[in-house]
Formats: sequence, C-alpha cells, structure tokens
Amino acid sequence: MPLADRRPLRIALLGCGVVGTEVARVLTSDAEEFARRIGAPVELVGIAVRRAGRRRDLDVPEELFTTDAMGLVTRGDVDVVIEVIGGIEPARELILAALEHGASVVTANKALLAEDGETLYEAAAKAERDLYYEAAVAGAIPIVRPLRESLAGDRVTRVLGIVNGTTNFILDAMSTTGAGFADALDEAQRLGYAEADPTADVEGFDAAAKAAILAGLAFHTRVTISDVHREGITEVTAADVRSAEEIGSVVKLLAICELDAEGAVSARVHPAMIPTSHPLASVRGAYNAVFVESEGAGQLMFYGPGAGGAPTASAVLGDVVTVAQHRLAGISGVGESAHASLEIVPIGRARTRYHVAIDVDDRPGVLSAVAQAFAAHDVSIKTVRQEGHGGDAQLVVVTHEAEDAALSATVADVRELDMVRGVSSVMRVEGVS
Amino acid sequence: MPLADRRPLRIALLGCGVVGTEVARVLTSDAEEFARRIGAPVELVGIAVRRAGRRRDLDVPEELFTTDAMGLVTRGDVDVVIEVIGGIEPARELILAALEHGASVVTANKALLAEDGETLYEAAAKAERDLYYEAAVAGAIPIVRPLRESLAGDRVTRVLGIVNGTTNFILDAMSTTGAGFADALDEAQRLGYAEADPTADVEGFDAAAKAAILAGLAFHTRVTISDVHREGITEVTAADVRSAEEIGSVVKLLAICELDAEGAVSARVHPAMIPTSHPLASVRGAYNAVFVESEGAGQLMFYGPGAGGAPTASAVLGDVVTVAQHRLAGISGVGESAHASLEIVPIGRARTRYHVAIDVDDRPGVLSAVAQAFAAHDVSIKTVRQEGHGGDAQLVVVTHEAEDAALSATVADVRELDMVRGVSSVMRVEGVS
Repeated sequence: MPLADRRPLRIALLGCGVVGTEVARVLTSDAEEFARRIGAPVELVGIAVRRAGRRRDLDVPEELFTTDAMGLVTRGDVDVVIEVIGGIEPARELILAALEHGASVVTANKALLAEDGETLYEAAAKAERDLYYEAAVAGAIPIVRPLRESLAGDRVTRVLGIVNGTTNFILDAMSTTGAGFADALDEAQRLGYAEADPTADVEGFDAAAKAAILAGLAFHTRVTISDVHREGITEVTAADVRSAEEIGSVVKLLAICELDAEGAVSARVHPAMIPTSHPLASVRGAYNAVFVESEGAGQLMFYGPGAGGAPTASAVLGDVVTVAQHRLAGISGVGESAHASLEIVPIGRARTRYHVAIDVDDRPGVLSAVAQAFAAHDVSIKTVRQEGHGGDAQLVVVTHEAEDAALSATVADVRELDMVRGVSSVMRVEGVS
Repeated sequence: MPLADRRPLRIALLGCGVVGTEVARVLTSDAEEFARRIGAPVELVGIAVRRAGRRRDLDVPEELFTTDAMGLVTRGDVDVVIEVIGGIEPARELILAALEHGASVVTANKALLAEDGETLYEAAAKAERDLYYEAAVAGAIPIVRPLRESLAGDRVTRVLGIVNGTTNFILDAMSTTGAGFADALDEAQRLGYAEADPTADVEGFDAAAKAAILAGLAFHTRVTISDVHREGITEVTAADVRSAEEIGSVVKLLAICELDAEGAVSARVHPAMIPTSHPLASVRGAYNAVFVESEGAGQLMFYGPGAGGAPTASAVLGDVVTVAQHRLAGISGVGESAHASLEIVPIGRARTRYHVAIDVDDRPGVLSAVAQAFAAHDVSIKTVRQEGHGGDAQLVVVTHEAEDAALSATVADVRELDMVRGVSSVMRVEGVS
C-alpha cells in the first residue's frame, strides 16, 4: 500500500511557544520525510493555544488552532499528543486525559516530571501507551534514551551534569572576564541567555528538576524535586572563581546524582569547583553536558545545546517518530523503571569535599587551631596553604571526602575561632577521582 | 506472577573472548538485576567457543560450552543470540540462522555490518526479529541508538568521529612527545593499545567499517565499507603534527560522513588537521568521540571509551535488555532505515580543505608560480606563509574548500614546478566552520 493511502498518524500539539512553533513547522514542512520515517503519513490535527487570534509565524490552516486543549486531547482519534506548555497544571490533567483517551504522549515538561512523574508513568502503563520525554533534560542532547535504554544492562554509579545553560553562561563569563555575579547576570540578560526573572535558573530550580529526572533514570528509583538538595549560583563571588583557578579548577553549577557506598542515592544541585582536566570543565557558554560514570562503560559524556527552539524540537520530534512507530505497530516502548527503590539520603549524608578560604590573624597557632576544628569532626585535610600576611592572611583548605554535615559543622566551628576573622569562601569540590 | 516463575528468556552467546567473557560474567553474576530490568529471568543456555577445554575465568557450568555454534543457534528455543565472534564468516551464517530460527540478535560485528548489513537487516525484517548493534561503533558510547532513534525526527548533516582508540592514542602521543609514527606505535604496542599486527587500526580499516555504519544511520542510506575512502596514519610525520600546531590545530584520524550541497553522501576516513578549539581536538589517548551536526539539534558530541571488554559488554548488554523486552512483548523494535537511498560520491567529489607544505627555492616569483598552480584548478587560497630562507624556504598554504580531485591535481602540478624542491606535507583540514 502506498504511504499516502495508509491511515494517517494523528498528532495534537499542546502549546505554541518557541518550541511548539518549531515542532509544528518541521512536522508540516517535512511531512513527507516524516511519513517515510514513520511508515505512515502524519497529520497535525490541532494546536492548543492560550489565546486565539495571535499572529504566529507558521504556515498552517487557521482552523487548527484552538483554545480548548481538553477538547483536543479527548476527541478520541488522536494518536500522539505533544505537550510543550510546561508547568504543572493544566499540563498534568491534559497529559492524563490524553493517555486515558488512547494517545501516546511526548512531553518536554521537566517541572511536571520532577514533581509528579509517578502519576504520569502509572497512567501511561495503565493505558498501555508511551510517555517519552527526551526534551525534558538537556534539550537536544540524547541523554534520557541512553540512560533508559543504552545503559540498561550496566550499573550507573554517578551522573554529573551541566544542565542549565543560563547559569553556565554566567559562570563562564565570570571566569573569563573576572566579573561578579550581578554583572555577569546583566550581560546574560542583555544577550538573551537569561530571562527578566532569572530565579528558576540562577536559584537552581531548573537544574534540580533535571537532577530528579536523571537520578530516577540512573538508579531505577523514584526521585522527585523535593528529594534534591538545591543551591543556586547567586552567592558565587569573583573571589570564589579566582580561588578555583588557584587550585586548577573552574566553578560550575552541577546536577549531581550518585550512589554512595551503602547503595543509597544522593541527588543535589550546587555550585562546585571541578578540575580543569575534567571533561565538564571545558563546557563553555550556554552549552550543556552530562557526564556519566558506570561500572561497565566507564566514563561517558554527552554534549550539546541545552535549550532553544530548534534543538528542543529535535528531541521532541525524535520521540514523536518512536512513539508513532509504536502506535502503528500497536505496541508500547520502555516504561518506568523504578524497581530498585533505593533510599535517598539528605544532603547532610552526602559525601563530598570542601574548599574553604579562611581570613585569619597571621600569628603562631592559627593553623593548629584551624586544623583541630577539622579534626574534631573527623574531616581530613588534603591541602592547606597560607596566602598573604598580617591583616590579609588567609588559609585555604581543601579537604578529603567527608559527610556534608561534618564539613558544614566544621566550617561553623571555624567561624567561631578566636583567630579567625571570617570565612570568605566555602565551596564543594567535585569531579576529583 | 513472581518473576522467578515466568518463562525464562533464553540467551545464547557466540564467542568467549574478552567481550564475550565479560558479557557472560555480568549476565550470570547480575542475573537477578537483569530479571528485574527485563521482567523475566534470564538463562544463559550456551556459549559457542572455537576450542573446547580451554581454561576460562568464568564461573559457569562447563556443559554450557560448545564448539557447535550452528547447533546452538538452530536448537529452536533461543530468544536472543549475542554474536561477539567478529569477522565475516561464520558470523554471518550464524546470525542468519539465528534469525531464521526465531532469535533476536545483538552483535558487536562492525566488519560484517559494514560489508553486508543489508543481508542481515533483510533477514531480521523477514523474521520479525531485532538486529541491534550498539557495540559495533565506538564501544560503550551510545551513538547507534541516538542516531537510529533520538535524532530520527531531525536531519543530520555531518558526523565527525574519532572512532579508533589505537590511532588516537598514537597521534596523541606524537603530539605530546614529538615522536614519529614508528616510535609512537611501538609505545602503543608496549602499553597494549595496539595489536602486534596493527594493520586494521593504523591503515584505517576499523574506522572505515564504523564510518560505513554511521553514514548509513545518519543518512538513511545503505553504505558499505567499499563506499568509504580510506587513508591510514602510517604516513603522518612528526613534521605534519608540528605543522598542525603552527596553525592552531591537531592531527586526528577522522571518520567523516557528510551531506554535500547536492544532498549526496561523502564517507571517508583519513588523518586531518582540526582546530584545537573543536570539541574533538581534546579527545585524548584511546578515548573515542563522535561529533554530530544536525539541522535541529545543532552540534552534539558523544564521548567515552571506544573499546575494552567491560565498555563493549555494557553496550551489548544494553541491547540485550531492549531486545529481551521486545521478545517478551512479542514485538520488534526499530529496523533498517534506508529509505533515502542517497547517492554516495567518490573521494574526488568530496569537498574539503588542504594544508600543503612546499619546499621551495627562495627566489622572486616562487609565490606567484605556486599561486598560479592553485588558481589553475580553481582552488582558492585562504592563507599562505613563508617559513625559513634560502635552502630551507618553505611555503605553507591552507586552502578554502574545494573538490578533493581539484586539490590533489593542484598538488601534483605544484610538485612539477621548477622552483619547487618538493611537497613535504599534504593533509586535509576539517572541522572549520
């Protein structure tokens, strides 16, 4: 049977912002190519938008646009629903209704997956439909599928990700120009890399949602954003960036998902110093990268643009081809993998290293007093060096790995020491083997 | 029904070298974990080996070993056959027999896929079984699945890969130590990075097989190893490596698959200079990386170990989990995608840039004569500089992009010029945007 005579695959699009517009554009302009790849013609049956009548730069019939998203997903003849609205509601109720009405779902919604992925997964399993979301983490970089499928026969031990382009751009600018956070943020906003309200990015909320998704995939365990310890980059100073340079490192906002020695999961987002020799250190500007360590494969890295209309649409459309092929074959693909149900530990129990810059009085006994504060919490010092003299004296300590609670208790005690004038920089050190 | 009571998934392993041993070890030692991931117990029903009675470092019952590989794949109750023998025969007849007898196949056999993937794909389609081969390209790096699935909704325009760890180790050593090819090869052999007979690696055969597979996946077109232009690294000199440094570049053996302006495919393997700012330039030692450019996603890179028992086994086992899930669900996954059937152009029509170092007589008119030879073939010069004086004078020319045939004809003409004493280095320049 010629391709054109086959029953078309019906696609509904929820949301028509930057990503939605690009998805609709490619689906319609490359319709023949999609038909060949999927094995049947594709038909865009509706585009749900918030406001009707807005001018859109899109060559599709006007009657495809509707403000009745719920009507679109429940009409009963839709094969694939693409959700690029974002946020929790109405995205959640629309996705659930779509699955109930027999559609497979492709979504880019990291916030919803990180908040309540469980409900979506269970609805997909019950409906025997696909729930795919490559675009939810690190834009165009294929990382969800490799974790869900390629590494399914391996045991992942750690995921370190630069998963937020805005903060990477800002930290990169601070490192390159010596600017402080506020100036670098201004520059990022001027160039369109940061939004007018940058909170979701600079406070680490966006990265934390992605960390929850990555940890869940890597460790076959349900992880929500509330399980993820989160610190943003607003407190990172030019002095921190210089301190990092002095120990051959750079400051990055990392999403960290790791298994500890007891087999429990730590999921956290915070700025950290990583050695310049680490593959993540050279990820510049607004690029994203995810570094994966596993028992079999060793060290892998996935690198690419983490945001933007076309890259995100590429990830969405890759999923659309897969779930469309599954719909035609009457099958569903990989579902949730949460069989391990590992314990998730609070930040206090995570094991890491600290870099601490301590302003001290330059007199005998100060090093001994500081060292004693570390020893009292069983925190072993890897290196210590003194910078400056007299009123400018500073001790810079890098620790060995210890529990975060012990490290932070140590720093609290150090602040109280008589000869200590203040602690000017505390930052975790990661990516050291 | 408890997992242990379900019908076990029966797996046969062909080959028990470094990779096969690791696959068998993980499958048996992690059997419970695999059962949870797949949804049924796994049972290793046989391991085909060339010679019986050899001592193996593997804790499996002796009766699993057999020298009758064909008997194993045709016994009729095998769900998944893992082929890690390598080479063309008997691997091909065993894979075909396995598919005919109802098994899905996971293979790491790049040589066979590059020589005759068509026959395997067609047999898999006819049998309605899976043919998966993540391990065939770049070891543990998930690149086959991203190209087959994640980027299925995008249009790939170029793939640049460092897909042979041995040659990357040698070129990296030449760059770091200033050594020539022969010394660097000796060092690689001493450290176990190169085999006693290094031909397959250093002459580019291994990379060419991978280039054929990558080009086929990227461009939905059948590409065999005979379509791939191949040059190895045996002619790369310490002087070439220094010349690369002088233009801010490094020498890498690249597998290049690209679409030209007319939509035809060029697939080739050769040493090339790439700028140090290119993400591939920092791929060190025996690591592999594949750089992908596409219309939607932009620039992606996949990085990791390209060889070794455990990394390759990780890729094999990821495929095993997927095809096992498909077998239990009674479905098959993604098949061959060759619908585009693009033309494949010979090397002469590929468009690239040359770096040419020409030993010349240091007298008036030489630059003009050389420039004229380039102009005569419509090859435009990007930069030219003179090094040395008198008897040591050298012109170093870097061209703009032109057809390879025109470039090589130009070099041939230059060699004949009166004032030219010789052409000491000719190398393509890639990765320049």
